[in-house]
Amino acid sequence: MNHLFAKRVFNTPKSFIREILKVTQDKEVISFAGGLPNPSVFPVDEIKASASKVLQEDGNEILQYTVTEGYYPLRKFISDRYRTQRGLDVSPEEILVTSGSQQGLDLIGKVFLNEGDSVAIERPGYLGAIQAFSLFEPRFSSIPLLEDGIDMEALDHVLNKEKVKLFYGVPNFQNPSGVTYSEKKRILLSFALRNTGTLMIEDDAYGELRFKGNNLPLVKSFNKEGVLLLGSFSKIVSPGLRLGWICAEKHIIEKLVTVKQASDLHSDYLSQRVVYQYIMENDIDAHIAKIRRVYGKQRDFMVEQIQRLFPEEIKYTKPEGGMFLWATLPQGIKAMEVFEEAIKENVAFVPGNPFYTGEMAEETMRLNFSNSDEGRIEEGIKRLSKVLKKVLQ
Amino acid sequence: MNHLFAKRVFNTPKSFIREILKVTQDKEVISFAGGLPNPSVFPVDEIKASASKVLQEDGNEILQYTVTEGYYPLRKFISDRYRTQRGLDVSPEEILVTSGSQQGLDLIGKVFLNEGDSVAIERPGYLGAIQAFSLFEPRFSSIPLLEDGIDMEALDHVLNKEKVKLFYGVPNFQNPSGVTYSEKKRILLSFALRNTGTLMIEDDAYGELRFKGNNLPLVKSFNKEGVLLLGSFSKIVSPGLRLGWICAEKHIIEKLVTVKQASDLHSDYLSQRVVYQYIMENDIDAHIAKIRRVYGKQRDFMVEQIQRLFPEEIKYTKPEGGMFLWATLPQGIKAMEVFEEAIKENVAFVPGNPFYTGEMAEETMRLNFSNSDEGRIEEGIKRLSKVLKKVLQ
Repeated sequence: MNHLFAKRVFNTPKSFIREILKVTQDKEVISFAGGLPNPSVFPVDEIKASASKVLQEDGNEILQYTVTEGYYPLRKFISDRYRTQRGLDVSPEEILVTSGSQQGLDLIGKVFLNEGDSVAIERPGYLGAIQAFSLFEPRFSSIPLLEDGIDMEALDHVLNKEKVKLFYGVPNFQNPSGVTYSEKKRILLSFALRNTGTLMIEDDAYGELRFKGNNLPLVKSFNKEGVLLLGSFSKIVSPGLRLGWICAEKHIIEKLVTVKQASDLHSDYLSQRVVYQYIMENDIDAHIAKIRRVYGKQRDFMVEQIQRLFPEEIKYTKPEGGMFLWATLPQGIKAMEVFEEAIKENVAFVPGNPFYTGEMAEETMRLNFSNSDEGRIEEGIKRLSKVLKKVLQ
Repeated sequence: MNHLFAKRVFNTPKSFIREILKVTQDKEVISFAGGLPNPSVFPVDEIKASASKVLQEDGNEILQYTVTEGYYPLRKFISDRYRTQRGLDVSPEEILVTSGSQQGLDLIGKVFLNEGDSVAIERPGYLGAIQAFSLFEPRFSSIPLLEDGIDMEALDHVLNKEKVKLFYGVPNFQNPSGVTYSEKKRILLSFALRNTGTLMIEDDAYGELRFKGNNLPLVKSFNKEGVLLLGSFSKIVSPGLRLGWICAEKHIIEKLVTVKQASDLHSDYLSQRVVYQYIMENDIDAHIAKIRRVYGKQRDFMVEQIQRLFPEEIKYTKPEGGMFLWATLPQGIKAMEVFEEAIKENVAFVPGNPFYTGEMAEETMRLNFSNSDEGRIEEGIKRLSKVLKKVLQ
C-alpha cells in the first residue's frame, strides 16, 4: 500500500510535539511542552453571548456558504487595527481570512513553492512552518538566530549563493526561542531581501503579546510589497475557533484565494461572525492587556525559578513577550535524554531537535510558560532542576 | 512577480462558478447557478441553543486547541450512522473530521498525488474535485457518465492502458449531472478498481438526500480497503459550519492526520461541538426527512416546468436526489452563449464547460433546484425557456 502514497508524505516530519502531547495528557505530568494559551484568559461568557446574538440576528446567513475571502467587516477590522496599532497602512482587500495561521502557511506553500525551491528559515525554526512547507518539497537553508534576531551575515551568504524564494521568520518572541529582532535587524533584513527579490513570510502570531519593552515596527512596514504578514486570533481570542489571516498585496491575495477555494472553500463562517461580534461588543485592547499581564507574570516567575534552581551552566533566553523561553544545556548533553528522565519525574518540555531543518543543536529545549500557573511552574521547575542536576553530575 | 508563483497555480482552474455567483448576487436575477442548500431548512434556533449549551458547559475546553483527528464522540456518531443507515461497518478511528469535504479532497491530493499521477474522474465531473486535485498536478482521464453511472467499458480501457492511482466519483445524485450509479455498476466498479489496485474516492456529499427510489449500497461496502469515502454536514446541517469527514482505513487516516496537522492543525472546534450537540438534542432523521421533502418537491416542480416550457429538443436528467439536474441542448448550441442571453433576462445557470477536464460538451448546462422556492422556479424556468426558444429558432 505504501507505494500509493505521494513522496511528499515521507518528507513531512511527523510532529514529535504531537507525540509528546500524548505522553503529557496524564494529569500528573506538569507540561511545559505544549504551545497552548492559558484557558483562564478565554472570554467564554462573551463568546457565548456573541454566538447567541449573531445566530439570533442573522442565523440563516451564517449557516450558509460564504465568500472565500472572509467576512468583510472582519477583514476591515484587521486592516484598521494594523493602521492604528502598528502603523501599517493596508486595505481590507489585502487581508485573507484563513483557518488559523497554520492554513496561511499551507496556502503560501501552495502558491509559491515548486519542488526544489529554496526556502530560508530561522535556526531553530517554527515547527509548524517546517511541516507546512515540507509538503511542497523545498530545499531548506537554516539561518542562525542571534540574540537580536537573524544572523545577517549568514543570511547574506545564503542569499548570494543561491536564489532564495522565501524567507520565513518570526520577528516577535519567536517560537521556539523567544528571540525578538531588533529594529536595526528588521531594516537590514528588509533591505537584503528586497535586493535579491526574496519574499518574506513575517509570522506575527505573538506580536500583540509583548509584556516588556517597546513595540517595534513590522518588517512589512519597511517593505510592503515584499512581505506576506501572518496574523492570528488564536493567541488573543481563542485557538479553538480556527481563525487567522494573511496580509499581502492584492495580486497575491487573488492567487491565495484561488488555492484557498480549492482547499476548503472558506473558513468557518460561524466563528468569523462570532469573533467579529465579540470584538465589536467588548474592549479587545483591555482583553489583550489582561493576557499580557497574566503571561508576563508567569514568564517572570518561571525565569525567577530557573535562576534560583537550574544548574549555572544552563543558559536561557528572557523573552519580552510570547509564550516560550529557550534553554541551552552544556555542549554534549542531549535534551532528548533529559526529556526521558524528566518524564519519569512527571515534568515535560520539548527537546530542540524538531525545530531544526538541518544540523541540530541537540542540547536545546523549549519551555512554555503561558499554559501553567505559578504553582505548577514552581513545582515543574523544581522537578526539572532535580533531573538536570542529576544529568549534569 | 509572476515568476515567483509555483507552476501549480497556473494549472488550477479559476472557478468560473465563483465568477458567475458574483453576477447573480443581483436580487433581480433568479439563479439556478449556485450549489447552495435552501436556508429555509437550516436549524437556526437549534444551533443557537446548542452553541449556548456547549459554551456554558465546556467553554474553556472548546476555545482551546484540540486534536487533529476531530472530536471523538462526533467521529463515533458518524461511524455508528454508517452502520445503522448504510450497512457499512467502520470504527470511529476510521473517521477523520475535516473542514468540509472540500478539505477532504485537498488532504487526499496531498497524501496520494505525485505530479503526473493518473487520476480518473467522471465526465462531466465535480468542479471542486478538479480544482483540489489540480494543485497536485496529476494527469486526468475523464470517463463518460451514462444514465446508470460510470461507463465501465471506457473505464476498463483506461485502467488497462495505464496505472490509474485514483478514481474519483459521486455515485449518488452526482454533481453536476444528477446521475445515480445502479447497484450493478457499483459492484462492477469495485471489482475493476480492486483488480488494478486503483483507489476510489467515493464522494457521498448528497447521499442522504434521496427523495425517490431506494437507497443503494455504498461502493465502499463492496471494497472496504480500496475506497476512501467522503461525507459532509454541509447538506444535512449547515455548510457555514465547515465540517465534513473522510472515512478510510486506519493506516490511511494516519497519513491524512499528518498532512492535516500541517494544513490547519484541526477543524474549528466550536463547530464540531455545536454540531454534535445539535445531533444529540434533536431528531436528525426527522430533519433530513424534512430536507428531502422540500428538495423533492422543488425538483418535481422544476421538472414539471421544464417539461411544460422547454423546447422539446432539450434533454434533461430527472435525479432521484441531490440538488442538481443536467440539461443537454441540441448539438452545436453552446450553453455559454445561452448563458449570456439568459443573464440579460435575469436568470442564471452554470454552462457545462468547467465540469470537464478534457474535451468539453459545450451544449450542457447545470440547473440547481435546492436553493429556489416554487415561485422562483416557475418564473426562472419561464425566463429561461424564452431564451432557449429564441436561441433554438
